[in-house]
Amino acid sequence: MVICPMPCHKPKAWGSVCGMIDQDMMAQYAKFAERLADAASVETLKRFRQQADVYNKAGVCFDPVTDADREAEQVQRQLINAAYPDHGIIGEEFGAENEDATYRWVLDPIDGTRAYVCGVASWTTLISLEVDGVPSLGVIDQPFTEERWLAVGGQLTYTARGKRQKVGVSGCTDIAKARLTTTDPRPAAYFSKAEAQAFDDLAAKVQLVRFSLDAYGYALLAIGELDIVMESGLQLHDYAALGPIVEAAGGVITNWRGDPPGAEGRGEILASASEELHEAALANISRSMAV
Amino acid sequence: MVICPMPCHKPKAWGSVCGMIDQDMMAQYAKFAERLADAASVETLKRFRQQADVYNKAGVCFDPVTDADREAEQVQRQLINAAYPDHGIIGEEFGAENEDATYRWVLDPIDGTRAYVCGVASWTTLISLEVDGVPSLGVIDQPFTEERWLAVGGQLTYTARGKRQKVGVSGCTDIAKARLTTTDPRPAAYFSKAEAQAFDDLAAKVQLVRFSLDAYGYALLAIGELDIVMESGLQLHDYAALGPIVEAAGGVITNWRGDPPGAEGRGEILASASEELHEAALANISRSMAV
Repeated sequence: MVICPMPCHKPKAWGSVCGMIDQDMMAQYAKFAERLADAASVETLKRFRQQADVYNKAGVCFDPVTDADREAEQVQRQLINAAYPDHGIIGEEFGAENEDATYRWVLDPIDGTRAYVCGVASWTTLISLEVDGVPSLGVIDQPFTEERWLAVGGQLTYTARGKRQKVGVSGCTDIAKARLTTTDPRPAAYFSKAEAQAFDDLAAKVQLVRFSLDAYGYALLAIGELDIVMESGLQLHDYAALGPIVEAAGGVITNWRGDPPGAEGRGEILASASEELHEAALANISRSMAV
Repeated sequence: MVICPMPCHKPKAWGSVCGMIDQDMMAQYAKFAERLADAASVETLKRFRQQADVYNKAGVCFDPVTDADREAEQVQRQLINAAYPDHGIIGEEFGAENEDATYRWVLDPIDGTRAYVCGVASWTTLISLEVDGVPSLGVIDQPFTEERWLAVGGQLTYTARGKRQKVGVSGCTDIAKARLTTTDPRPAAYFSKAEAQAFDDLAAKVQLVRFSLDAYGYALLAIGELDIVMESGLQLHDYAALGPIVEAAGGVITNWRGDPPGAEGRGEILASASEELHEAALANISRSMAV
C-alpha cells in the first residue's frame, strides 16, 4: 500500500515526508531501527561508567571517542549491510558508504560522548533514515534510563522502561516563560563569538537555561520539558534524527534563518515548542547576529 | 558502644567525625536518613515531568521552587519531629527549627530544581546530619535513575536500582586529564566575574568540561566519573551532604582556600578526585583570583 502519510495542509520545515512513500515499508524500517538501537545499547551500556579509555580523534582540539562509539556503529553497520545491502550509511565514526542510495541510514552511536565519559546519562544513540535526502524516521535512545523516542510518518512513540507514554511539546508561546538549552554556551566550544552573544541575548530573555544535554535536549523538548534548543556546529549525524521527532511532537525545527537544518550555514539548529515561540526566537537571533 | 570511627591519622578537611560518636546511633540515623530519602522520593517522583507549576521565590532573580520541593521537605520534617523531637532541622524551603541542637538535619528536598523543571534527572535529594556542627552523615538520592549515595563513619554505600556497587573516586592526579564540572559557568549565575574567570582559566587546562549537574556532579565524582567540581554561591543545604560522601569515596573537598566548606567566603566549593589534583586546582584558582 502506497499512501501519503502526511496531511500536508501547510509546508513543513523539515522531517516530513510528503511524497509517495510505502507506509508498510516504513513500518518495517521503524522496527529495524529499533533493532539497531537495541544492538547499539549492548555495546554502549556494558562500557558506561567503566572508566574506559578515551581517545582524542580531533588532534589539538579534544574530541573524545570511545570503544563504545566504535563497536556500536560497527554492529549497526553489519546489521544494515545484512538486511538492506542496497541502502546507504553515513556514520559518525566510520564515514559514508553507498552514499547515493535512495534510503540512507544516518548513525550517531553515542551523541554526547563527553557526557558518556563523565557518567552522565544524557548521551543518546541517534538513528535516522533518509529517503531521497529527507530524514523520514528518527530514533533517540537512552539505554541507561531506558527511554526511547521513535518518530515515523509524523507519529511519535515515546517509551520509558518499556511503558509507552503519550507525549508532546509544551506548546509554550511566551519567551519569558521558556526553558532554553544549548550544549555549551562558551564561544570556544560550538558557537562562534557572535553566535555565543546571540545565545546570551536570548538567554537573558527566557525563564531558565540548562546546558550539556546534546540531543537529549531535543528529546526533552519533545516530551514538553524544554521549550527552546539553540545550537550551532552540528553535523548531519547530530541532527538528522531530531527533525522527525521534534515535528511529530508538535514542535518546530529549522536552522537559524528558518530554513531546514543543514540547508546552509554551519549547522545552526533552533527547535521550539510552538510556531509562535520559534518566530520570536528567530527574530531575537536575527537582531543579535545583525549587530 | 562508643568508639571513634575514624583513624584520624591526619587532619581531614571536613566531613569526618573524629570525636567520640556512638556508632550504633549513627547506624540508626543512617537507616532513618534512608527513610527520609524514600519519603521525599514519593513527593518528587509523582510530580517529575508533569509540567507542574513553578514558583519564583527570589523576586527579580529567578529562583524556582515547586510543590515537590515544599511537600518533600514537609514530609521529612514531620518524620524527624516524630522520631527525634530534640533534633534540629535546617531546610532549604522552611528554614531552621531547634537550631542549637547537637544533632541537626540539613535538608535540600530538590537540589537542582532547574533540572527538575526541565525533566533532567540530575536533580537530587540531599540529606545531612550534623553532629555539633560537623556534617557526619550524607545522602545524595536520585529516585528517577534509582541511585543513592550514603556516607556515614567514613564508609560510602552506593546503590543503583537496588544493587550495591563498590565505588570510589578516579584518583586522577593530572589536571590535563581531568573532567571538570560546574553548574553554570556564566558570571551572571553563581560565579562573580572574577570567579567565572578563575573557572575559565581552570577549564582551559583540563580534558573536558560539563555543566548543569548541581550536586549530582559530586555524586559522579564519588563514583569515579568526574575529577573536579568547582562551584560558588552554595549554601549549607547545598553542600552539607557532599563532604561525607566525597571524603568517604577517597576524594577531597574544601573551599577555594583549602579550608572546610563554609568556613568563610561566599560558599565556594572545590572537590577533587585526589589530594594532588586538589592542590593543583587550588593553586590555579589562587593564581587566577590574585590577578
